[in-house]
Amino acid sequence: MALRVGVVGGGQLARMMVPAAVELGIDIRVLAEGPGMSAAIAATAEGDYHDADTVLAFARDVDVVTFDHEHVPQDVLRALVGAGVAVRPGPAALAVAQDKILMRTRLSELGLPVPDWSAVHDADELRTFLDDHGGKAVVKTARGGYDGKGVRVVTDPSQVDDWFVALAETGGEQALLVEEFVPFTRELAQSVARRPSGDVVAWPLVETQQRDGVCAEVIAPAPDSAGRLADLAESIAVRIAEELDVTGVLAVELFQTSDERILINELAMRPHNTGHWSIDGATTSQFEQHLRAVLDLPLGTTGMDTRVAVMVNVLGGPADGDLAARYPAALEAFPEAKYHFYGKAPRPGRKIGHVTVTGDDVDDVVFRARSAAAHFDD
Amino acid sequence: MALRVGVVGGGQLARMMVPAAVELGIDIRVLAEGPGMSAAIAATAEGDYHDADTVLAFARDVDVVTFDHEHVPQDVLRALVGAGVAVRPGPAALAVAQDKILMRTRLSELGLPVPDWSAVHDADELRTFLDDHGGKAVVKTARGGYDGKGVRVVTDPSQVDDWFVALAETGGEQALLVEEFVPFTRELAQSVARRPSGDVVAWPLVETQQRDGVCAEVIAPAPDSAGRLADLAESIAVRIAEELDVTGVLAVELFQTSDERILINELAMRPHNTGHWSIDGATTSQFEQHLRAVLDLPLGTTGMDTRVAVMVNVLGGPADGDLAARYPAALEAFPEAKYHFYGKAPRPGRKIGHVTVTGDDVDDVVFRARSAAAHFDD
Repeated sequence: MALRVGVVGGGQLARMMVPAAVELGIDIRVLAEGPGMSAAIAATAEGDYHDADTVLAFARDVDVVTFDHEHVPQDVLRALVGAGVAVRPGPAALAVAQDKILMRTRLSELGLPVPDWSAVHDADELRTFLDDHGGKAVVKTARGGYDGKGVRVVTDPSQVDDWFVALAETGGEQALLVEEFVPFTRELAQSVARRPSGDVVAWPLVETQQRDGVCAEVIAPAPDSAGRLADLAESIAVRIAEELDVTGVLAVELFQTSDERILINELAMRPHNTGHWSIDGATTSQFEQHLRAVLDLPLGTTGMDTRVAVMVNVLGGPADGDLAARYPAALEAFPEAKYHFYGKAPRPGRKIGHVTVTGDDVDDVVFRARSAAAHFDD
Repeated sequence: MALRVGVVGGGQLARMMVPAAVELGIDIRVLAEGPGMSAAIAATAEGDYHDADTVLAFARDVDVVTFDHEHVPQDVLRALVGAGVAVRPGPAALAVAQDKILMRTRLSELGLPVPDWSAVHDADELRTFLDDHGGKAVVKTARGGYDGKGVRVVTDPSQVDDWFVALAETGGEQALLVEEFVPFTRELAQSVARRPSGDVVAWPLVETQQRDGVCAEVIAPAPDSAGRLADLAESIAVRIAEELDVTGVLAVELFQTSDERILINELAMRPHNTGHWSIDGATTSQFEQHLRAVLDLPLGTTGMDTRVAVMVNVLGGPADGDLAARYPAALEAFPEAKYHFYGKAPRPGRKIGHVTVTGDDVDDVVFRARSAAAHFDD
């Protein structure tokens, strides 16, 4: 009997687990939101992940349940655990990824480096924070944000009036997260994987370029990061994984400041866009590692066979929607590039794929990866 | 609309096309022989590939049909072509892979180096061949053999009496292939890929170790093969691909003799066991390349990022059938190895998976690949 992993959610992260599962001989089953999802090839059930009965029925035939995203409600997660299902990462860890205020609270308790922050319930509290932080701050909804959604840079509380109205409608118990605006010099990301029995491994620290709040480009390893910076990032991510009892992949998005500090921006308790380079650039990809970790199997080597790997997202795709028509020119021009598409229809700003190139010289590899990916845009 | 490839046959070669298809964003559909096949995750139909209507119905929704094996009958292949389906490789090329006597005839016509051979219809003809070749020869059934099946080393015609009886029962039109026994120093394999519009690319020449007629181990590139030997092997494989109009991957199994000649042993017009190392060892795997080739897309780079890659087959598996129980020790001992399993139940001698290790030193890599694979045997 093959090992069986159930993935809740049929997006591209579940999809990218499929090759790793097929290769390792693991039986992967996906609970998709509906037909035609990215991970449809592995979908064995369709249904609403907010419904405990749906998820319990799906979980009955697998050895462990893991996730394409962090949005499965706590009551569903706890029903799974109550039914004896192995859930990785577990509900307590996921709670921290699901609520940015809880996340900031826990990281602060652990003494880990985060931007100044506060939970604000109304415009007055936000104004006070702004006054204390140079008149500019980042406001985030505590729940449900991703890819820049639910994040605004503000200079006046009126810029999030709609969010305060929505909060008030929910009874006023919730709050918005406000953080100091960090004048970072660049953004970094550190991924690690941890298995239930305790082992943790780290991939190289990477540099990430965001565009409109969406990951656009990743360079592995981050240039000029060897030594103290890489050690610090790794120690932070390992500590978070251990203290929060994360199992599977944990991605920690970081700000590097001009005074060589690093501050924690976001956490993701799953394979993450900043780790896609590892499919083609690391001995063990984040997707294979996630499967190994949630199955509590020994973790794989995270080193690289080349000096540098660069991943560039394909955002949007061709306006005419005809992705297939773009393959010939791209593959002809860059036969060494690794092309990844998610089975999603092109749409402005949508992550529909990525391209990874490996090599020795960072400038050359960046150029080729960008050029190859550009064949799929207008 | 994604590009759609239909694969006839649900074995491990179809299975190993799945990760490449998922990554490239290609919609892969498999016509499986029945439920529970290796490539079940991509099976969209089940049925008998000997039945033209079954295969035609399957082919209706794809851009191109290709194969997990070479056993689809010519009448079925020609019915597909007649219906306007793109069939790659095409019927004329596959005919050469389906009949070893036709294969020897065509290669001889092309002046390519093959062992001395003859088509023999009875014991007398075989005895004459034996007398002319030192009393020892290799007899092969013209059709249906694989993995050492349908191949016998004989010193007397009586050793294939049963095959002659079977021939007589079919009307006497068919023959057995007999070949000189080649005292080879080692076996090599050269894979190439060719697209319909003509481009051909070659992977490095590899050395293969057979055990009981089954591929056991592959070293890429073949040690001490740089220069004349590699050039010769590549030119032979490219010439075969072009002259026989092969599309997709072509694997050419070769004998190297003590006088530095190479002779063609077998051909396979599909991804082949001797190319499995390319999944982890080459920039473009044979499975990705096969998909690109049959879709007439530009072919990928075939180089290696490491000096050596070694693949060792897992043959048989644990006697108790519990493959999953073997993962922890193997993955712990060799976290850098890439493990591949085919979703097949362990059974003595059966190819159920393979392990690939890459690195710089061939002896070290061979040792680690063998040791990692050995965890899955008794």
